[in-house]
This record gives sequence, C-alpha cells and structure tokens, in this order.
Amino acid sequence: MFEPENAVKVLTPEQEEKVHEQAMRILEEIGTDVLHDQGRKIAEQAGLKVDGERVRWDRGFIMEQVAKAPASFTLAARNPERTLQVGGGAPPVLMGVGGPPFASDMDRGRRSGDINAHEDFVKMTQATDVLNCVQVGACEPVELDVNFRHMDMEYSAIRWSDKPYTTYGTSGPKARDGIRMAEIVHGGRDKIEATPALMGIVNPNSPLIWDFRMTDALIAWAEANQPIVVTPFLLAGATSTVSTAGALAQQVAEALSGVALAQLIRPGVPCLYGSFFTALDMRTGSPAFGTPESVFGVLAGSQLARRYGLPFRGGGGLCSANQLDAQAAFETMMMLWATFLAGTDVVLHAAGWLEGGLTASYEKFAYDVELLTQFRLQGKGIGFSDEELGFEALADVGPGGLFLASKHTKAHFKEWLYMSPLFQTPDFSSWDVSGRQSTEQAANIAWKKLLESYEDPGIDPAVDEELREYIATRKLDPPEPED
Amino acid sequence: MFEPENAVKVLTPEQEEKVHEQAMRILEEIGTDVLHDQGRKIAEQAGLKVDGERVRWDRGFIMEQVAKAPASFTLAARNPERTLQVGGGAPPVLMGVGGPPFASDMDRGRRSGDINAHEDFVKMTQATDVLNCVQVGACEPVELDVNFRHMDMEYSAIRWSDKPYTTYGTSGPKARDGIRMAEIVHGGRDKIEATPALMGIVNPNSPLIWDFRMTDALIAWAEANQPIVVTPFLLAGATSTVSTAGALAQQVAEALSGVALAQLIRPGVPCLYGSFFTALDMRTGSPAFGTPESVFGVLAGSQLARRYGLPFRGGGGLCSANQLDAQAAFETMMMLWATFLAGTDVVLHAAGWLEGGLTASYEKFAYDVELLTQFRLQGKGIGFSDEELGFEALADVGPGGLFLASKHTKAHFKEWLYMSPLFQTPDFSSWDVSGRQSTEQAANIAWKKLLESYEDPGIDPAVDEELREYIATRKLDPPEPED
Repeated sequence: MFEPENAVKVLTPEQEEKVHEQAMRILEEIGTDVLHDQGRKIAEQAGLKVDGERVRWDRGFIMEQVAKAPASFTLAARNPERTLQVGGGAPPVLMGVGGPPFASDMDRGRRSGDINAHEDFVKMTQATDVLNCVQVGACEPVELDVNFRHMDMEYSAIRWSDKPYTTYGTSGPKARDGIRMAEIVHGGRDKIEATPALMGIVNPNSPLIWDFRMTDALIAWAEANQPIVVTPFLLAGATSTVSTAGALAQQVAEALSGVALAQLIRPGVPCLYGSFFTALDMRTGSPAFGTPESVFGVLAGSQLARRYGLPFRGGGGLCSANQLDAQAAFETMMMLWATFLAGTDVVLHAAGWLEGGLTASYEKFAYDVELLTQFRLQGKGIGFSDEELGFEALADVGPGGLFLASKHTKAHFKEWLYMSPLFQTPDFSSWDVSGRQSTEQAANIAWKKLLESYEDPGIDPAVDEELREYIATRKLDPPEPED
Repeated sequence: MFEPENAVKVLTPEQEEKVHEQAMRILEEIGTDVLHDQGRKIAEQAGLKVDGERVRWDRGFIMEQVAKAPASFTLAARNPERTLQVGGGAPPVLMGVGGPPFASDMDRGRRSGDINAHEDFVKMTQATDVLNCVQVGACEPVELDVNFRHMDMEYSAIRWSDKPYTTYGTSGPKARDGIRMAEIVHGGRDKIEATPALMGIVNPNSPLIWDFRMTDALIAWAEANQPIVVTPFLLAGATSTVSTAGALAQQVAEALSGVALAQLIRPGVPCLYGSFFTALDMRTGSPAFGTPESVFGVLAGSQLARRYGLPFRGGGGLCSANQLDAQAAFETMMMLWATFLAGTDVVLHAAGWLEGGLTASYEKFAYDVELLTQFRLQGKGIGFSDEELGFEALADVGPGGLFLASKHTKAHFKEWLYMSPLFQTPDFSSWDVSGRQSTEQAANIAWKKLLESYEDPGIDPAVDEELREYIATRKLDPPEPED
C-alpha cells in the first residue's frame, strides 16, 4: 500500500495548480539570487534575464529543463547485488541519519561525534537489511580537521559497507573529492558517468538564494552525472512564509530552479525533488518535527514531485525530542507514516535521528530499524494463499475451539505472526518483578546485537590503497577555498 | 484526507471477494452456535437450518438482513448540540478507553479502578473537544458491587457529561438497565426508539459462538432500536487462524451473523461492523497491539464494512506497553494512523488505553488527546486562501530575507503554526539545565489542566432524581441472572 501510485494525496488538483502557478510567478517575477559567477553565466547564456546576482527564470524554460531529468535512474553499489533503482516505482532508498555533531547511546551518553561513531553507524547500516543505502556523515567526526574529514567519512562509508551511498559534499571542493573517490572505487570517471555511484544533496539558502558552495557542489555533481537531491530546507515562519501553501510554492520554485541549473550543466543528469519542510516553534526558535505542517510537507512534496516527473526525497524518522521517550516516538511515527504514505523514493535520516537532527542516537537507530521492518511488512500486504485463508483450519477447530494448539497455528505462527524483538508484551506483574525493562534498554541490546552481527564486506586491496593514498595526498595540500 | 471515501485500501478487489466468499462458506457450512433459546427460535422461524445449538446461515438470507441496516444514523445526546451523525461521511465518533480494571497516573501509581477515576475520565472526555462521545466503563469501579455497578457507571457518564455515550451492557439485564436509564434521560421509550440514545457493543465468543449474555444484550438493544456495534475480538492464533486472511473471513462471518440476528429482531436497527483484530504474542500469550496484523485488521475491516454498507468501528489508541514510554507511543501511533486512514466511523479506546487495555492511564489520555488534535488538523488539510499563499509576503522578504519578523508571520503564526502544548522543542542545553522534563511529566500537567477546565453541564433535577431512584430501587432487588 506504500507504492508511489497509491500515495495519499493531500492537495486537490486545484490546490496543486495554485502551488504551481505561484511557483512560476515566484521564478519569473522575483527570481533567485545565484551567488556563483559560472552558474549565472550559464543561466545568461541560456537566455535567462540576469540582473546583478538575480536570475529570473522563465516558466517555459524551467519546465523544458526539468523535463530532461529522468523519472528513475540506477545508483551503483560497489557490490553489484546492492545496486539500486531509484524512482519509477522501485522500493524506497532508505538511509540512516546524516549531519549530527553529536552521538549518543545509553552507555556512553551524549558526546561529540567522532570517526568511530561514524564507522559504527556505517556498520549498523550495512548489517541491517531494512536500510539499502549508506549516509556519509552519520555524525561529524569533530576530532578530525574540518577541511579534510569529509574524505575520512567517505572512506568510512566505502570501506565498511558495500551498499550505495549519499556523499557528504557540502561545497564544491568536498563534492569533487567525493566524486574522485567514487571514481577510484568504480574504475574511473567513465564508469560513474555511465552509472551514477553516489547521490549529492543541495539545499538552497532559503529563501531563494543559490549560494556559492551549494551551486559549486551542484555543478560538480552535474558535470559528473551524479544524482542531485535538490532539497529546500523550509521552516515555516523563518525561511518560508508561516503558511504551508506559500512554503510549498517556494519549495517548487527553489527545487525546480536547482534542477534546471543542473540540467543546463548536463542535460539528463538525474535530479530529485526534495522536501524538508516543517514549522518553526516560535516558543524556542527550533524546528518542530512531527507536527501537522511536517506531515503536509512530505505528502504535498511527493505529490508535487510526481507532477514534475521527478523522484521524490522526503520524510525520515525525524523528531524534535531530546530523549528517547514517548515524544520522540510520536514525532517519529508522524514522520514515518507520512514518508511511507507519500510513496517516497529516497529517505534520508530514516534511522538514528534524535534531537532535531543534532544527535545520532544508537538506540534511536535500533527503534527505527524495528519500525522500518514493520512498515516493510505492512507494505507487503496480506497473504492470500489457500493455506492463509485456512478454511479447513477453522472448520477443524469449530465454534468455541481454540486455535492455539491447532496444527495450522503450530505450522505457521513463526512465519506469519509478527513478534517484535523490541516491543515485548509481558503482563504487568511479570514485567514488574523482572525489573521493568524499558524500550530504551531493549534498544540498547538491539543495536549491540546488530553491530555484533556486522560482517566486513572486504574491499579490493588495490582500491583500498588508492583511496588511502588519495586522502593522504589531499591532506598534504592546503585546504581549497570553498566560497 | 481521512474521509471514508479516501480510505486506504489494503485488499485488492480479488482479495476482498475471497474474504467474502469464504465468510459465506463459513456461515453456510460451519455456521455458528447460538446459545440463546429465543435467538435460535427466531433464526429457525426465519427459515434457517438449526441443528442443536448450531445455526447455519444462508448467504442470501444474511445479505438480505444486512441490507436492512442503515448506512448512517443519529445518536442523540441529552444536549442536542452534541447529538452526532454516525457514518455516512460524518466525522468519526471518538471515545475514551473502556474496560480496564486498573487506573494509573504518575502521582498515585497503578491501582484498582474506582468510581472516582471513572468520573475523572468522564469529566476529561467532557472537557476535551476532540472526544465527542463518552465511553461508559472507562475503568471498572471494583469497590462497588459487580451486580449493580454498571448503573453507577451509566449514571457517571450521564450526570457529568452531556455528550452521547456508549453503554456498558455486558449482559441482557445490564443492557436493559442502560436502556431504562436512557429512557429516563430522553423522556421515554418512544423518544429513544425514534432517535437512538446509546450504542451497545457485542462481541461473539470467537470462534463462531453467540453466547447467552451477548445474544441477550443484542436482543435488548435491537428491541429498543439502539445501535449495536458487532465486534468480533479476534486474536490471530488464539480465537482465529494465525493468518490474517482467515481471520478476516471469520470476522465477516461473525459480524454479519450478529447484524442479521439484530435485523431479525428489529428490521432497520442501526448496526456497525466492528473490527478488533490483532496477533497473539506467542512468547507471552498476550495480544500484541500496533503490529502489522493489527494495522491490517483496521484497514481491511473498514474496507469490508463499506462493502456491506455498514458504518465501521475499529482501531483506537491501542498499545501493549506497560508504561508510557516509546513503545507505548510507537504502538499507539501504528493504531491511530490505521484508524484515521481507514476513515473509521466509530473509535472506542481513542484516549487513555495502556497495558493492553488493562489500565486506564491519565497521562496516556493526555497524550492521546494531543495526538487526536494533530490528526484533526491533518484531516482539515492545507489552507489555500490568498493570504496563505502569501505571494506578497515572499516578495516583501525577498531572496535571503528572514520571515521571522515579517508582518505576515506576526499576523498569522498563532493561528496557522501548530505548536504542541505537550511536545516541546527546547534545545538540549536549556532542557538539560531546566531538569530534563519528560513527556510523561508534561502529560501529567496536561491532564490536570484538562480536568480543572471541566465545567459541569448540569442536569434537570427531575431527571437526576428519577435516575437515582431507579438505581436505588434496582439495588434493592436480587441480582438478575445473566446467563
């Protein structure tokens, strides 16, 4: 029931049209600033009106460029069995959390991220079959030089997992390092241009600015034919209007201008329509995740992405809560349901996100893996074999009988009944006398078990050496200016 | 997006047909036991084959009877402004928890239910606008005589709330007391027969038994034209096959035989198709709420109810967890999302359910009220006035501007941004130094505030006296035999 064609629609056709119309007006009448000389030059050469840093995007031009982006594409993994189709009705691409400066678990508490924690998240992602893609930057290894640690993170993802990945790339130079490393892994530039090997995320500086860093990264990925996830990060009342309708129009304007720019660099480069929209909590100045606005953001974002024929990135296991309590769970479930109901193609932050994204939590990772498992089962629907219909099983038991000891139950309960390893159902007294285990404690056990189950996929020693050499050499250079 | 016509469908047309076909086979070939002489006699007189206690239900007969039940009906409240339409696309009827022997809150802990706690739940239901109906039996007042306390509970619901209610009625005599009290409230039997004044719940003794108590209650309500919620309580692997498909067919057979029986008693009496299905956790022998099976149960149940033209009762804020932690929240959210996505017409246990239904929790009530508030907002969809589209607001702020201090934001944020009173978003440091308030603590504050906000709706002193007199007189009688 979670296929894109069954996605829950939150906009009426008239509302969808209003969003589109206003987005086109924004692009044509207000335009966006592009703080990147080459970016502006390309736009000007394409016939767009450029006025200082402001680019005004003609609607015909925008739609023409957007139409060049494919509706689906292949994302290569270094293990070909783990290569993914993205979009076009394929199962969602699911990744762990990305970006937090902190990491936490019950044993060691909340602490600064480091490369060991990063590696743990990569390994847990590799070890669970519900995540099919790695997020570089699961947490920031703050002990490493900020100018070079992106390569340590890329290496961590490449070395310890053989699943495809989303690159770090928060600037042109960092994006180019990531591309270079992917070339080494996949056997050269030609190979990754033929079949993309990483996904890059660009966020405009909302409202309506394409800043140097992001434009530079976008150009680097577009030149290399690597998929670009164009994701406006819109906070109602801060970086967009306080109203959802206005924010959606702005989202379309920002997303499509990014896609159009990428298509100008390289026609046909895969681009995703990304949505990351929620409300600002005016009481604290923090983003509030799991609110009705954030649910609307995912569902409407998906609907708009389909309109423009682009794969959709949105949602995730997002929450604002500072600890792993009921609030974290409620918020996460609001977001995950929206994510699946939207038929989302690419989901970042599907596991491990806590504290508004500031902390990568090991226990939250275990929670989310459990939830993703349940959503996957739901997505499969109900089995309808004759044995599952089980007319004879009922006839045998008959009115007033008990199925517990029946042959049918004994033969099938292990396969057919879902019994969660994390969510237990002891009666109150047993649970009370046995020490009242909390879900967090169960999650603590679960992630350790997951990490223990990790198997090193190995790596071609020559590739490994070349990667290490590349990083070592680059670390000898002075840091490249990023903006 | 939560209207019945937009309900998420989990069964393909072929699967739905398979369920129906097997249900008809069950009714015709296996049949149900009816442990009630009058019930069997009525069935026999209607031409059904009765063999000892076994009744075999002809499919043509079943469908003919079911077709007599209305697709929607009116449920009268003693305050006419609170009278509800049930089914037919009306907003869902939402009630608090019913049935638990225990009550709990953070201050007093987990304890046996009593009439004061029952009254608190009635008052909290009256005080919140997200619940529009009262559940008699929010918790069992175990300090009162089991033979008569149903009347104390009915009185508690009638006296302290002016919303409509679901009656207690776990047997014929108790159902008849409830009906008599409704007659007193609404001005006589004619009045409540013209416009129903309570809803009654019947659960067959699954698999496939209509026992004396429930049949007796069903007959009492049917005779009085009071809506009957026919709800098989199916536990996969215990009271139904371990497979969902088989359980659904059994659910249809049980539900429709109950509806048919009610229609034989009084053609046209409102009947609901109820679904209460989940898996048995084989590790503990307890029902597991929030699993994929329970999500399927709600969505498929709704789809089947529509097929038969009956309003649908299902779902609720159900969970297995023994405490108000992340597990409780995850499970509850699985169930609530399914409930709303199914376009459910009547929702019992929408607030306050904890510990598999064994405990009525004050803090859980506050959680659920908050969640229902958010679902209601989601159900309203996105506002699309020109002011909400806010083109001028964006044009004024312009690229790189900030909306925080804009006129548009200031004018509208209080109305348009949802800021949860329960789920707060302080940054980690502020939250840490201010004592790390838990969601449970916030909920403890929330339910007290709700209870404090309660306003006594008053009651006609003559009605009140008659009710009290009825109860006092009945308590002088010897208890009526229930089976």
